[in-house]
Amino acid sequence: MSRETSILVVGSVAYDTVETPFGKAEQVLGGSASFFSVAASFFAPVNLVGVVGDDFGDKELAAFKGRPIDVAGLERAAGKTFHWQGKYSYDLNSRDTIRTDLNVFEHFKPRIPESYRRSGLVFLGNIDPALQRSVLDQVQKPRLVACDTMNFWISGRLEELKKTLERVDILLINDAEARQLSGEWNIVKAARVIRAMGPSILVIKKGEHGVLMFSEHGSFAAPAYPLESVFDPTGAGDTFAGGFIGYLAGAADESDDVLRRAVIMGSTLASFCVEAFSLDRLVALTRAEIDERFRLFKKLTHFESL
Amino acid sequence: MSRETSILVVGSVAYDTVETPFGKAEQVLGGSASFFSVAASFFAPVNLVGVVGDDFGDKELAAFKGRPIDVAGLERAAGKTFHWQGKYSYDLNSRDTIRTDLNVFEHFKPRIPESYRRSGLVFLGNIDPALQRSVLDQVQKPRLVACDTMNFWISGRLEELKKTLERVDILLINDAEARQLSGEWNIVKAARVIRAMGPSILVIKKGEHGVLMFSEHGSFAAPAYPLESVFDPTGAGDTFAGGFIGYLAGAADESDDVLRRAVIMGSTLASFCVEAFSLDRLVALTRAEIDERFRLFKKLTHFESL
Repeated sequence: MSRETSILVVGSVAYDTVETPFGKAEQVLGGSASFFSVAASFFAPVNLVGVVGDDFGDKELAAFKGRPIDVAGLERAAGKTFHWQGKYSYDLNSRDTIRTDLNVFEHFKPRIPESYRRSGLVFLGNIDPALQRSVLDQVQKPRLVACDTMNFWISGRLEELKKTLERVDILLINDAEARQLSGEWNIVKAARVIRAMGPSILVIKKGEHGVLMFSEHGSFAAPAYPLESVFDPTGAGDTFAGGFIGYLAGAADESDDVLRRAVIMGSTLASFCVEAFSLDRLVALTRAEIDERFRLFKKLTHFESL
Repeated sequence: MSRETSILVVGSVAYDTVETPFGKAEQVLGGSASFFSVAASFFAPVNLVGVVGDDFGDKELAAFKGRPIDVAGLERAAGKTFHWQGKYSYDLNSRDTIRTDLNVFEHFKPRIPESYRRSGLVFLGNIDPALQRSVLDQVQKPRLVACDTMNFWISGRLEELKKTLERVDILLINDAEARQLSGEWNIVKAARVIRAMGPSILVIKKGEHGVLMFSEHGSFAAPAYPLESVFDPTGAGDTFAGGFIGYLAGAADESDDVLRRAVIMGSTLASFCVEAFSLDRLVALTRAEIDERFRLFKKLTHFESL
């Protein structure tokens, strides 16, 4: 049997209203599963599970069309689509949530279509850890399970989250979340504590400061690509995850070399994401542009041995 | 004539009293020129210019002994040595200055001994930019001039600083200083503005987030080494500069390859500096340990092309 490369992603599909120092975008496509799916679809087939309301139109769906993204698992419920509104500080380094209307996402119970159940990789987006486990209960022995979470679940659902982490191979979180989850300030100590909870691979996202990965092979550090204009950081973390998991899905194994290139691929995709609002840059992206920026990452970080 | 590899460094030699979450060190050797000199001395001869008071004893001088550090230019003045006292936050990411007694450093006028004037490289530590220029007026065509500065001079002596920068090849500052000096938040834009002021090479130090270098060859990003225990960050920036300039001094040219390895060497030395108070780790360090950690930096950052 051939190696199963398809990726099941469960997460939010949303409307975002975003204000940055450079402009405002109203009711544009957002959500973790949206960014993840488009990024991952450059490398492997994606099986999307999420929920939208009856206000979700063909215009938004167009972002997924013409790509290997299966939307059979994108449930349509009566009501409005999840809506998030945020405003970034002048330096883009912090943001305030103006409003969050969960709408149909509030009672989202992931139902995995029969055709998705043999997906080779699973990405559990940032939802209630008990729901994340319910997804794992519905799939058949995926090759790799990856997971995101956030401060809300770490502080409010820690025991549930720990049960989920026991079944996870790869955890992708930011540095503040890693510190909160582990109770350790030092990031190396934090990584050891978290990896003992289950995930053998921990990817810590540090925004403009890049990414640290910890695994049985040791640690790997990658910078963020230094961009002259960062337009809108929304979705960068989910896009990183999409590039990272997508690259792993399409690779021949999960060796240290592959994991390292996957981190760079995630960083590459994320560096495009922030160049425009919503998924605007991602949907216009070509594989040639991706490979060229990957090559620039190599130039950015390479040095010769002594 | 052979290539002149000696480094002239002008800066502070001080007593530090430092409190971290892990302990307190009273009246220990500190100062930018001290950290710089010991770090650089692993690679090239160092000519030290600074001032100490009559309280500065053999115990402190011992840090420079047995190394290629010439202290003929370390002036001894009547009065007390510069004393800085600081306390770090629990996470080591911020510090409060408890007190600063400039003492003999207040009226420091760098006098460059005749035997130092042909130094191949000059490192202007963080002093009044007019004094930095007075050093350049006393030396003969150094191969490279490098320079540090701080927020105090950027806000209070900007025009003087700009005159100095016109004569500088390499500026080493932190990210906050780069933003302040350029008036640009975006670090890529900031680098372009600063390089137009004179320094063709700009090294931006980001502490635990590593280093970005901008030059005519493009940009280079290096992470900080992820350490399990950071004991005392005091002097890490000056130690970075010492490793960086020291490596350049001993190298055959200033090619992009050499500059990149110099950044990693600076980061390597800095990663040892923070493992103990004062210069305690640096003075116990061996070249074999340095080379081994440089090798680990390669392992930390390396990835294969697609």
